[in-house]
Amino acid sequence: MRISKYHGTGNDFVFVEDLDGRLDIPPAFVAAVCDRHRGVGGDGLIRVVRGDARGSDGADFFMDYINAEGQPAEMCGNGIRCLAVYAYERDLTSKTELVVDTRDGLKRLWLDVADGRVRSVTVDMGPPALERAKIPMGGGDPTAHVTAEPLEAAGRTWRASAVSMGNPHCVLFLDDAEDLAAMDVRGIGSEIEHLPLFPNRTNVEFVQVPDASRVRMRVWERGVGETLACGTGACAALVASAVAGRAVRSADVEVPGGLLRVEWREDDGRVYLAGPATFVFDADLSDEWARAAGLSGVPTATAS
Amino acid sequence: MRISKYHGTGNDFVFVEDLDGRLDIPPAFVAAVCDRHRGVGGDGLIRVVRGDARGSDGADFFMDYINAEGQPAEMCGNGIRCLAVYAYERDLTSKTELVVDTRDGLKRLWLDVADGRVRSVTVDMGPPALERAKIPMGGGDPTAHVTAEPLEAAGRTWRASAVSMGNPHCVLFLDDAEDLAAMDVRGIGSEIEHLPLFPNRTNVEFVQVPDASRVRMRVWERGVGETLACGTGACAALVASAVAGRAVRSADVEVPGGLLRVEWREDDGRVYLAGPATFVFDADLSDEWARAAGLSGVPTATAS
Repeated sequence: MRISKYHGTGNDFVFVEDLDGRLDIPPAFVAAVCDRHRGVGGDGLIRVVRGDARGSDGADFFMDYINAEGQPAEMCGNGIRCLAVYAYERDLTSKTELVVDTRDGLKRLWLDVADGRVRSVTVDMGPPALERAKIPMGGGDPTAHVTAEPLEAAGRTWRASAVSMGNPHCVLFLDDAEDLAAMDVRGIGSEIEHLPLFPNRTNVEFVQVPDASRVRMRVWERGVGETLACGTGACAALVASAVAGRAVRSADVEVPGGLLRVEWREDDGRVYLAGPATFVFDADLSDEWARAAGLSGVPTATAS
Repeated sequence: MRISKYHGTGNDFVFVEDLDGRLDIPPAFVAAVCDRHRGVGGDGLIRVVRGDARGSDGADFFMDYINAEGQPAEMCGNGIRCLAVYAYERDLTSKTELVVDTRDGLKRLWLDVADGRVRSVTVDMGPPALERAKIPMGGGDPTAHVTAEPLEAAGRTWRASAVSMGNPHCVLFLDDAEDLAAMDVRGIGSEIEHLPLFPNRTNVEFVQVPDASRVRMRVWERGVGETLACGTGACAALVASAVAGRAVRSADVEVPGGLLRVEWREDDGRVYLAGPATFVFDADLSDEWARAAGLSGVPTATAS
């Protein structure tokens, strides 16, 4: 079985090309492949299927994203950028505007191409929802955005904003003088993730805004831990920063894995995430490896 | 640049074949390749050189082991088993007894082969040194082995033995009733690693001996963190258990990444470590990937 490794600002994915949609990939196989010591390693596996093979109306491709635990997931902003690079640079498409179907619906992407190489991919991440009810406010207009409200956790009072990008985010604003690198993202993130305030748990962003066009963050991902980048988290951080009047609506977002560009457009109210995606390597996984991993073998295509 | 990924009970390595010893691999390249999110991922990189190309008298191969931080390291019990499988299954040798040169000197290995496949590799890890001086004893014979002596750390009294397998180990014996899986290996391990008692710091093994022929352990590796396996740590755990009268001199050692077999022979006083090594995949790394990782390119052979 041929697989390919890509990463987008440090979020990394194992790609399996299955254009006709004939592969059935068991969760145990995904977990074994994503194992960082005994397998290929990755935050998740992405199966690339042609839109028409999936019956996705109007979509060029379907992104079947399965996380490292083997669970299907709805959407991944860094993964879908990698998919666009995969499809274009492997000549599966010559389009520089793509529509990709996901479990969260159709997503539009734009490729910035020079000399046949994709330099950057922009993805329409949809409109944010500012979740006022999530963090209690001390009075004021109940229809106003929740922005930098007091949140008690981990022994201190944070200024926090709750933002949904389809998935939940709790954006914490740090003082400029605080040392972001020294922050206990694991301890604080895991505590906030499990607060009763967030019944579906939450991702947690630790954010500084050194100037209005630059947001710096670290991220604790719900059910995963700290990661080098989180596409929806970068969007949530920009939106919360803009609502709080700290950043403009189009800014660079620095994540530990690299630099993203996020724009929250005024005209359509949607958030656009741009950034690089990097091919790492192709590899073949053998039945022998799969058996050593306790599996019966690598998945093979079934008649459709 | 062609690389290959192998693992031995979850210790994983990126192999670079350089039989004529012509490659100069910069530390930054090793760090980028071993990066688990943006590179191939691994505990270290192993460059395979023919013994005669290295000028290693009597050695079939030289193992140039460089850890994930880019630092040359002396020896790696799981890595050298992977090297033996690499060499045999890729027809670089047809011998089933090998001599491999390392920065810790010549090592002997024996391959258990069936149907052309290597099932297990045994490596002579040398004699242990029982480091009496390392842990203070409450009287008794000063020439006796240090065995399960009281050690105060992390708020409790441990029974600890100090063993060197070329590198330092502090073996902690847990009660059978303790939950090894719930042990705070990170917190306790990092504290003991840095005790003044261990001026060169130390690896820390958390050990249970459910029966005399079975040792179960988790390991905190000096400068690395918790790992799925540690070859010298498994040897140290068996030696300490045997000296303490808890285990016989030939036992299975269960590590999180799998099962090892350790024998401390009476006839020569040396420790023999046996276990599997698994091929995962081959891959090609491109200059394009290297540049995305901030490097000038992949290393190329220079005239020798």
